[in-house]
Amino acid sequence: MKALTEMTKGELRAFRAEAESEYSLCKAKGLKLDMSRGKPGREQLDLTTDILSVLTSADQCQVDGVDARNYGIVDGLPMCKTYFADLLSVKSEQVFAAGNSSLNLMYDIISKAYTHGMLHSEKPWAKLDKVKFLCPSPGYDRHFAVSATFGTELITVPMTEDGPDMDIVEQLVKDKDVKGMWCVPKYSNPDGYIYSDETIKRIASLRPAAPDFTLMWDNAYCVHEFDGDFVPFINIIDECAKYGNADMVYEFASTSKISVPGAGIACFASSEANIKYQKSLISFQTIGYDKMNQLRTVLYLKNKEHTLEIMKKHAAILKPKFETVIEYLDKEIAPLGFASYHKPKGGYFISLNTLDGTAKRACALAKEAGLIMTSAGATFPYGNDPLDRNIRIAPSVPPIDELKSAAEVLCVCLKLAAAEKLLSDDNE
Amino acid sequence: MKALTEMTKGELRAFRAEAESEYSLCKAKGLKLDMSRGKPGREQLDLTTDILSVLTSADQCQVDGVDARNYGIVDGLPMCKTYFADLLSVKSEQVFAAGNSSLNLMYDIISKAYTHGMLHSEKPWAKLDKVKFLCPSPGYDRHFAVSATFGTELITVPMTEDGPDMDIVEQLVKDKDVKGMWCVPKYSNPDGYIYSDETIKRIASLRPAAPDFTLMWDNAYCVHEFDGDFVPFINIIDECAKYGNADMVYEFASTSKISVPGAGIACFASSEANIKYQKSLISFQTIGYDKMNQLRTVLYLKNKEHTLEIMKKHAAILKPKFETVIEYLDKEIAPLGFASYHKPKGGYFISLNTLDGTAKRACALAKEAGLIMTSAGATFPYGNDPLDRNIRIAPSVPPIDELKSAAEVLCVCLKLAAAEKLLSDDNE
Repeated sequence: MKALTEMTKGELRAFRAEAESEYSLCKAKGLKLDMSRGKPGREQLDLTTDILSVLTSADQCQVDGVDARNYGIVDGLPMCKTYFADLLSVKSEQVFAAGNSSLNLMYDIISKAYTHGMLHSEKPWAKLDKVKFLCPSPGYDRHFAVSATFGTELITVPMTEDGPDMDIVEQLVKDKDVKGMWCVPKYSNPDGYIYSDETIKRIASLRPAAPDFTLMWDNAYCVHEFDGDFVPFINIIDECAKYGNADMVYEFASTSKISVPGAGIACFASSEANIKYQKSLISFQTIGYDKMNQLRTVLYLKNKEHTLEIMKKHAAILKPKFETVIEYLDKEIAPLGFASYHKPKGGYFISLNTLDGTAKRACALAKEAGLIMTSAGATFPYGNDPLDRNIRIAPSVPPIDELKSAAEVLCVCLKLAAAEKLLSDDNE
Repeated sequence: MKALTEMTKGELRAFRAEAESEYSLCKAKGLKLDMSRGKPGREQLDLTTDILSVLTSADQCQVDGVDARNYGIVDGLPMCKTYFADLLSVKSEQVFAAGNSSLNLMYDIISKAYTHGMLHSEKPWAKLDKVKFLCPSPGYDRHFAVSATFGTELITVPMTEDGPDMDIVEQLVKDKDVKGMWCVPKYSNPDGYIYSDETIKRIASLRPAAPDFTLMWDNAYCVHEFDGDFVPFINIIDECAKYGNADMVYEFASTSKISVPGAGIACFASSEANIKYQKSLISFQTIGYDKMNQLRTVLYLKNKEHTLEIMKKHAAILKPKFETVIEYLDKEIAPLGFASYHKPKGGYFISLNTLDGTAKRACALAKEAGLIMTSAGATFPYGNDPLDRNIRIAPSVPPIDELKSAAEVLCVCLKLAAAEKLLSDDNE
């Protein structure tokens, strides 16, 4: 196959005509497919049915010297803090265990920065004229949206295969209005990159002008390999402390993609000073999170070792799904030379950069043919991908046969959108 | 028995001496008692053990057209909204069903008023120089604390047997800085009063200067009779709408004192416009609350009728506890004429007004004798009871035999503190 950009105008026209005819065939099928959502599929949900019967008696609720059914213990059951400490290789005193959503915790911490300030803030962020936040992109739209809903200015930082471009980050943090950075250090959303040790070291040793600069370290995929064994990660809490930045980071994790997606347990880990500070603020917000679900989840997951065994079962379901999409991309798109993508070994996404200026068009074509993709642009601040090229592919929900159809449709749309663009650039 | 205030100085001295000797005997027992916490006791927790095995299969999770295990539906499972609509006699479109804590919902709504504003706010409250909130007192310390943590000025409004003193409230709301009022309309915390229909009508028809004046209507004890049958309550959502105040009220409820205290489900009810507004804000905060616990709880509680049957079982446990304390007060305190208290038929507290200026002293004495009471003053804004007379008694946790000891100690402390005060006022 010839690269698209090397084709003559005549070849391109023929290519477009063929793509159009393939597209018509796709449309005629009246498909209803969805590769937009980074959530577990039905098979994965069924993996964890046992969790529903792991906690059934009143006696089991007597743990850690309390009755898990009653009110209280705002930072979570000690056994739950211990579980997360094991999972993240931090100390249990550095863990605050909460409810079913790590996003909720992230939002609440940012919200408190606005209403109360962070531990080292001079004043609450709501009292400042300007607050800026660094957004390595492509990144997770819900992170960016949390900052945006509080009126924060979002600063795009390019992602590299090693993580955020640190040359740029080191410059940007000299601005005292820059209050933090969103990070997904392992299997970054959507690229699936793992931050390199060097990048993590440079992040941990940053010298930001803002005394309350905060890393929102979303370790969402900390044990979420679908291909190969568990990959250890640097303990960001210790790493920051090593450089005198002990209070600079909040790390987040949850069991949402380990146990029950909408009914898992979430936590944040940070310095003991930060835990104490947040605890003092959160004590006004709630008497305590759902300790019964903390207990249920820990009884089921037990510890990191057993959690990794469960992740192997998720991997067995996810790996063929990712392979299916990659196979189509390798066969249909790679030889044409206009798009690039990384083959991740964990996480929930494939990030594809198609021909500049064609991502929106490709997604619109897909939608018209019955395939829902994450909106093009969603992976950038304000939903605005300056090169209009990034598409996030989420292969976890559809069964393999649907996924084949979806990947086929996507490839056709990518090709058609690219051919259209190249011909229109030529002022055909 | 003679009223304390009618005693001669000599009689008082003899009374004090007897109280001192009774107090010494109490102290000598080395008791460890607690009447400070408005939470269910062990027997009540055990009532609801069946909830732990009501949801055990994957098939049960397929409800309302979704898989309850997966992400999504920020305002809760339709069946859960229907349950709360039934409980509160509102429409399910007026319900937002959430997580395990109604206090958390209250905090989050106040927090969003500060960061984003209410539906009819001119600007976020954080941008205002001053925000005031009305606090009918004695009231619930955690309500007041939510407002206080955001820097709100708390305005004390006297409670009457019919609810907040409306003559005063109607004057206060003419101040545009007054942004709302905390209310516990049924079995008020701590008095156990039920707001009268007339009071509710006056509240619903208020004409506040602030366009975003907000009633925080905490219907915490909506079905929580421990003595007698369910007492119907006015639908505050409709009532406000009747007077053109449709968006003025948020009503809160939870199953915390119905199912599992720390692992129940909570909701707020409001106008459809408010629900839509909050949903748009909360969509940034979370992808969804724990739908599995919503499902589990609704499978267990079923509907209002069945919930009221369960409440009868709670009542059978609670009633004798309240009677025990009231018996002691009736026998030991009432005849002395220096204290007053209401005998509630629902809720979790007895509110006692002892001799002015002696509540702190009585609680300190109790503590020294091994009995923990809610801090005197806690039921007033900033923890400051101007008359130093209100004591909140929570009889739900201790078993009856402990409760007898606790009530005995409390009575001795009340008597001793009162006698000390009267003698010191006399400049003995």
